[in-house]
Amino acid sequence: MSGSIYGEAFKVSTFGESHGPMMGCVIDGCPAGLEIDMDLLHSFLARRRPGQSKVVTGRRESDDFEIVSGVFCGKTTGSPITVLVKNQDANSSNYDDLKDVYRPGHADYTYDLKYGYRDYRGGGRSSGRETVCRVIAGAVAMMILRTLGIEIHAYTRSISDIEIEHIDFNEIDNPVYMPDRDASDRAVDRIMKVKESGDSLGGVIECTIDNLPAGLGEPVFDKYDGNLAKAVMSIGAIKAFEIGDGFKVSSARGSENNDSYVNQNGKISKLTNHSGGVLGGITDGSQVLFRAAVKPTPSISRKQDTVTKDGIECELEISGRHDPCIVPRAVVVVESMAAIATVDMLFSNMSARMDNIIDFYR
Amino acid sequence: MSGSIYGEAFKVSTFGESHGPMMGCVIDGCPAGLEIDMDLLHSFLARRRPGQSKVVTGRRESDDFEIVSGVFCGKTTGSPITVLVKNQDANSSNYDDLKDVYRPGHADYTYDLKYGYRDYRGGGRSSGRETVCRVIAGAVAMMILRTLGIEIHAYTRSISDIEIEHIDFNEIDNPVYMPDRDASDRAVDRIMKVKESGDSLGGVIECTIDNLPAGLGEPVFDKYDGNLAKAVMSIGAIKAFEIGDGFKVSSARGSENNDSYVNQNGKISKLTNHSGGVLGGITDGSQVLFRAAVKPTPSISRKQDTVTKDGIECELEISGRHDPCIVPRAVVVVESMAAIATVDMLFSNMSARMDNIIDFYR
Amino acid sequence: MSGSIYGEAFKVSTFGESHGPMMGCVIDGCPAGLEIDMDLLHSFLARRRPGQSKVVTGRRESDDFEIVSGVFCGKTTGSPITVLVKNQDANSSNYDDLKDVYRPGHADYTYDLKYGYRDYRGGGRSSGRETVCRVIAGAVAMMILRTLGIEIHAYTRSISDIEIEHIDFNEIDNPVYMPDRDASDRAVDRIMKVKESGDSLGGVIECTIDNLPAGLGEPVFDKYDGNLAKAVMSIGAIKAFEIGDGFKVSSARGSENNDSYVNQNGKISKLTNHSGGVLGGITDGSQVLFRAAVKPTPSISRKQDTVTKDGIECELEISGRHDPCIVPRAVVVVESMAAIATVDMLFSNMSARMDNIIDFYR
Amino acid sequence: MSGSIYGEAFKVSTFGESHGPMMGCVIDGCPAGLEIDMDLLHSFLARRRPGQSKVVTGRRESDDFEIVSGVFCGKTTGSPITVLVKNQDANSSNYDDLKDVYRPGHADYTYDLKYGYRDYRGGGRSSGRETVCRVIAGAVAMMILRTLGIEIHAYTRSISDIEIEHIDFNEIDNPVYMPDRDASDRAVDRIMKVKESGDSLGGVIECTIDNLPAGLGEPVFDKYDGNLAKAVMSIGAIKAFEIGDGFKVSSARGSENNDSYVNQNGKISKLTNHSGGVLGGITDGSQVLFRAAVKPTPSISRKQDTVTKDGIECELEISGRHDPCIVPRAVVVVESMAAIATVDMLFSNMSARMDNIIDFYR
Repeated sequence: MSGSIYGEAFKVSTFGESHGPMMGCVIDGCPAGLEIDMDLLHSFLARRRPGQSKVVTGRRESDDFEIVSGVFCGKTTGSPITVLVKNQDANSSNYDDLKDVYRPGHADYTYDLKYGYRDYRGGGRSSGRETVCRVIAGAVAMMILRTLGIEIHAYTRSISDIEIEHIDFNEIDNPVYMPDRDASDRAVDRIMKVKESGDSLGGVIECTIDNLPAGLGEPVFDKYDGNLAKAVMSIGAIKAFEIGDGFKVSSARGSENNDSYVNQNGKISKLTNHSGGVLGGITDGSQVLFRAAVKPTPSISRKQDTVTKDGIECELEISGRHDPCIVPRAVVVVESMAAIATVDMLFSNMSARMDNIIDFYR
Repeated sequence: MSGSIYGEAFKVSTFGESHGPMMGCVIDGCPAGLEIDMDLLHSFLARRRPGQSKVVTGRRESDDFEIVSGVFCGKTTGSPITVLVKNQDANSSNYDDLKDVYRPGHADYTYDLKYGYRDYRGGGRSSGRETVCRVIAGAVAMMILRTLGIEIHAYTRSISDIEIEHIDFNEIDNPVYMPDRDASDRAVDRIMKVKESGDSLGGVIECTIDNLPAGLGEPVFDKYDGNLAKAVMSIGAIKAFEIGDGFKVSSARGSENNDSYVNQNGKISKLTNHSGGVLGGITDGSQVLFRAAVKPTPSISRKQDTVTKDGIECELEISGRHDPCIVPRAVVVVESMAAIATVDMLFSNMSARMDNIIDFYR
Repeated sequence: MSGSIYGEAFKVSTFGESHGPMMGCVIDGCPAGLEIDMDLLHSFLARRRPGQSKVVTGRRESDDFEIVSGVFCGKTTGSPITVLVKNQDANSSNYDDLKDVYRPGHADYTYDLKYGYRDYRGGGRSSGRETVCRVIAGAVAMMILRTLGIEIHAYTRSISDIEIEHIDFNEIDNPVYMPDRDASDRAVDRIMKVKESGDSLGGVIECTIDNLPAGLGEPVFDKYDGNLAKAVMSIGAIKAFEIGDGFKVSSARGSENNDSYVNQNGKISKLTNHSGGVLGGITDGSQVLFRAAVKPTPSISRKQDTVTKDGIECELEISGRHDPCIVPRAVVVVESMAAIATVDMLFSNMSARMDNIIDFYR
Repeated sequence: MSGSIYGEAFKVSTFGESHGPMMGCVIDGCPAGLEIDMDLLHSFLARRRPGQSKVVTGRRESDDFEIVSGVFCGKTTGSPITVLVKNQDANSSNYDDLKDVYRPGHADYTYDLKYGYRDYRGGGRSSGRETVCRVIAGAVAMMILRTLGIEIHAYTRSISDIEIEHIDFNEIDNPVYMPDRDASDRAVDRIMKVKESGDSLGGVIECTIDNLPAGLGEPVFDKYDGNLAKAVMSIGAIKAFEIGDGFKVSSARGSENNDSYVNQNGKISKLTNHSGGVLGGITDGSQVLFRAAVKPTPSISRKQDTVTKDGIECELEISGRHDPCIVPRAVVVVESMAAIATVDMLFSNMSARMDNIIDFYR
C-alpha cells in the first residue's frame, strides 16, 4: 500500500532516503499560472536547514534544489512539479555499526517488522531528512495561500518546561524560533546544557492561520481539523495535536467553552475563539490555532539498553551529529504541513455550492 | 467534494440527518465470510443509545436497525453492507425557533457559510445522531478484529477535573463508563449538578488496542497514529488527540522518553511504552494507547448571546433534551473509529512484502 | 477492497442485491442548492424500467423510490443524498435451482472464485438490477449538467446487424430507443423472433455530449476519455468502448484523422471531429461522441452445457423472465454513467488555474 | 486536480516534460523484497526507444536511467521507488515556430484551454516522451507479475489494413512487433511509403495475460476490464478498447457468445473464451485478451490547415523527427499499463475474504 502521497485535490508525494543520492517531492494538482517565489522557497529551506545554529545538528546540507518539471518561464504549468535535493554530507560509515542494532525511539525496529528489511543508513526513509521535501511542497502551498491573502505562522511555544510569555514576531529571529526573546535565551541555554549531558529535549509548536475563508473542511470524515491533525501527526516526532483550547476543553463548562456570536459593524463574528476557528469541522472565518507536541530527539549519546535484530541485548551509544532538540527545525515543517492540508481543502471546497459552479462555468 | 466516506481498503460511509426519516451506513470493502455477531452490534448500539441513564439525553431512540444488503445467511458476501436506522423520536418542532438563530458551539453558522443553506432540524447532518452509523460500522470492524484476536477498549479517563485513579474493567458498568467506580460516582454527581445549573461538562476518553500485529501504518503520510488522529478527530466534539505520552513528551528528555528494547524469553519487547505502541508511524506489536478530549456539550439551557443569520443580536435559551455531558456516549464512538481505522490499515498492510504476496497467490 | 464507489469529487456508491429488500445509492459530493427535478428522475427510471415493452423482461418493478437524506425543502444540502428503491417482484424461488449451477456468461462462477460464497438469488450483487441505482445517480448528475446547459444523449446505434441509417430524435420514442423508426421496427421484429427461439441479441449504444466546457480531463492518467471508458465499461454487459472514430483510426492516415482548426466568426473551431471532442485526454469544446458494445443477454432459455460448483457437468435451461436484448434498457444506464463521470471531471477541473482560484476566493 | 498518479494500492506517478531536463516516475506501494531485474528494465526501455529502427523517430535517447530511491542492495525496501531519465536529444529550437500555432491532432489547443498556458517545447507534458516513465513502472510491475508466474504479451495486431494472420512469438523480433514475419514485412514497407508521402499510419495492439489468478477486479465500479480500459486509454494515442470478442458481441447471439463450462480433469474451465477472461468484471482464471486502437501520428510533414492561438488561420508543415507510425513503440506501453493495472488489482484483492485475512495475520 502506498503511503508517501498526501492529499486529494493537491497531492504531495515525497521520495528518497537519508543517505541515498537525493530527496525529492512531486506536487500533482498545483494550478497553472502560479509564479514561483524563489525567495520564499529559499527562506523555507533555510529555516529547516541543518547547521544553521549551535542548537541543531552539524550535518551540512546546502539543500540546493533543482526544479525539474512543472514550471515554465517561472510559472507553474498545471503539470506535476518536481523538485530534487541532493544529499551531500551523508556519512554512511557512521551507520555501519547500527546495521543490526535497534535504536530506541527510532523506526528501525518497526521498519524491519513491516518490511523484513530496511535501508539502515541514516534512518533511510524514516529519517527527518524526508521533511526537506515537505518544506519544499509547503513553500509552494504557501505561495498559493499568500496569493489569496492567507497567512500561516508556526512558532515554538515551549521547549521542555520553558514556555513563551508573549508573542512578538519581531523577536522570532532566534535559534529556537520563539516569538519571545527572553524565553528563547533560556531555551538555548537549556538545550546546550542538555546536549552536553548527552541527552535531548522536546517541546510544543503552535501555529496560527489567518484570513482563511470560511467554509473549508468537508463534513463528516474530512473535517478541517481532522485533516490538519493527520497532516501534522504524519511528521515523525509529533505525538499530540490539539485545536483551539484543545485538552483544556475537557475541564471547561459549556457556558465557558461556547463562543458567543456578535454583530461587529455589520459582520457576524465571535467574541472568543475557544474553538480554534473550526465548528463542526468547518472553518468559520476566524483564526485557526493549533498546537503539536514534539518528542525529544531519540538519538542521544548517553548509553542506552537495546537489542540487535537477532534479539541479543547490548548497550548503545549513538555518535554522529544529531539535533539535541528538533523543535526549532520542526517549526517550518509544521507550517508546511498546515499549508499543504489547507490548500488541499481550499480546492476541495470549490464544488460545495451549485451557485458557485454556475458562476464558474458560465 | 465528498466528505462522508472514511478509509481506503475498508470504506465506511454514513448518511442521514438527525430529523430525516433515517440514518444509514454503507461498508464497502468488508471481506466475505464474516459472521455477523448480532449481540456485538446490539451491545455497541446500547452503549451509545440516548436515554440509557439519567446523565444523558432523554430522547428515546430504540435504534432498531435493518441490514438491507451485503449479508446472506448470516455471513457477509463481500458486497457493500448497508444498515438503516429509523429516526423515531425526532421532535422537529423544538427546532423551529432555531431556524434562523446560530447556536454557539454548534455547526449552524459554518454550514450556512459553506452551503448557503442548511437543514436546521436537530442539527441536520452535523448532529451527534450521525454517530449511530459510526457505531454500527465500528461494530462490524470489531467483528473482524476480534476474529484476529485484537481487542480495543475505550473508557472515560476524566469528566471535568474528576479523573480515574485506577483501571478495573470490572467497574466500568456505570453511567459514565469509567473503570473506577468511585470516580464514576463523583462524576455522575457532578454532571447532575451541572445539568441543574443549565450547563454542561467535557472530559477525556482513553483507548487501548491490544494484540495488534506489528507493521501496521504506511510511512510517511499514512502513519498509524496520524490516521487514528484523523479518524478520532472527525467525531464532532473531539478537540485534541494524543498517543502514548502525548503532550507530556514535550517536557521529557530523550533518555526518559526512549523505550529500551529487551529480550524477554526470546522475544524482542520494550521495557516501557512511552511511544504508545507506534514508532515512525508503524505499530511495534505493543499496546497502542491514545487519548481524546471531548468538549462540553454546546447545547445548554443557560441564556447565551448570539445572532440570527441576518446578524441581529439576540439571546438564546436552548430547551429540549440534551446531554449534559456527551463523554459517556462518545466512548463507544471513539472505540468504533479506532476499530474502523485499524481494519483499514490491516488491509492496506497486506501488500507490504513480496514474500507474503507470493504466499498469498501461490 | 472497496469497489462500489465511483468518482473523486462527485462520489456515487450503490448497494443492494437483486432479491434483497432494496437497492440504494448514495451520492456524496453533490453541491448544495440544486433543485431536485422529480420529473427528470422519473423519466430516467421509466427508460430503464422492466416491463415497459414487449422486448424487455416481464419482471414488474414500479421502481418507487424514496429520498431519505441530503434533500431539504426540495433542494440538495451538500450532505450525502441517499435514494432507496424497494425490490418488489423478486421471485427467488426461480433461482433455487441455480444455487449450485454456474450460468454461462454470468458472474456466478467468478463471484464464487473471488468470495468463496455468493448470494445466488437473482444474480445477487452482479444482477442488472444494480443499474437502477446508477440511473438515479445519473439523473441527479444530469440535473447538474442541465443547469450548466450541457446535454447528453445516448441511443441505440445497432441491434445485432440492424444499424440506424439516420439520427432523428423525434423518432426515438420506440421500444429500442433508436433515433430511426424504420430501423427500430426491424430491430423489434428481430428481437421477438430471437426471443421465440430462446436466444438473445446484443447491440451498440452511441452517446453524444454537447455544450461541454473545454478543459475537462486531467492529464495524464485521468483523461476525460479514459475515465469515461472506465465508467461505461463498469456496466455489466459492456465489452468495448471507443471515442470519436474509435477503431477506425487504426486504418486512417494522419492527414485524414487530424481535425483542422479554423476560425469561425472569431472563434477557433475544428472542421471535422474525428477525435470525438477530446485531445490529449482534455475536452476541446466540440461534441464528445462515444460508442459501447453490449453483449447479448446471457440468460437464454436454450439448453446450455455447464457445471455445478462441484464441477459436475450438466445441462441448463434458464426459465424466468429475462430480457431477450438488454440494449434498450442499457441506453439510459450508459447516459447515466457518462453524466456521473462528466460531473466528477467538471468539479475536478475547478482548481486547474490560479486565476480562477483567485476569482473564486476573492 | 491531480491526474498524474495511477492506481490505489500500487500507485505510479510520472513527471517531466519532453524538453525539460528529465522525465521520472515514482512507484509508491511496491512491496519490499522484490529483486530489481535490470535486464528486464533495459529490455522494456529498448522496445520503446526512439531510433531503434527505420520505422520510428530518429530522436536519439539512450534512456539511461538512475534509480534514486526505494532500492537497497538490489532489492526494493517498500519505500517509493524513483527512477529518473535525462532528456538528452531534446531540440527545442524545432519548436519555436510552434509556440503560437496549434498542431492538429495534438493537445496544444486543449492544454491552452485548460491551463491558459503551456510548455510548447516538444509537446511538453502531453508528449509521447512521458510514456518512458510508464514503461519503467511497467517493467517493475512485470517483475512482480513474473514472480507470480503471470505473463503479459502485447503485440501489433494490425497496421493500417495489414493484419497478422497467425501468432508466432518466434517471429516477433521485427521493427513493428508483429508475431507474423510476413505481415510485418508488408507493414514496414507500407510505413516507409507513407512516411515518404509525408503522412502517418495507425494500427491495433493486442495483448494477452496468462496465468492470472481468478478473482481479480472489484465489483461493481472497479471491474478488472473497466480499470484496464482506463489504464490503456490513458495512453495518448489510444482511441478504443475492447475485451474478449469486443465490438463483435454486438452482432452475436447469446447462445454463441456464452462460454460453456466443462470439467477438464477435475478442474472447471470454459470451452471458449468470448468473454476475454472476465465475467462480471472479475477474472475467471482463463486468458485475458484485449485490443486497443492506435491513431496515426498527428505530426505529419504534409501541409495542414490550422490557426494560431490568436485565431489567425495559417498553414503548417511539421518538420522534425517524428514517428510515421507510433504503433511499434506503443506495444510495450500497452503491456506496461496492463501490468500496472493488474498489480494494482492483485493487491486490492488480498482483503476480499475473511479466511485469507485470518491466514495472513495468524
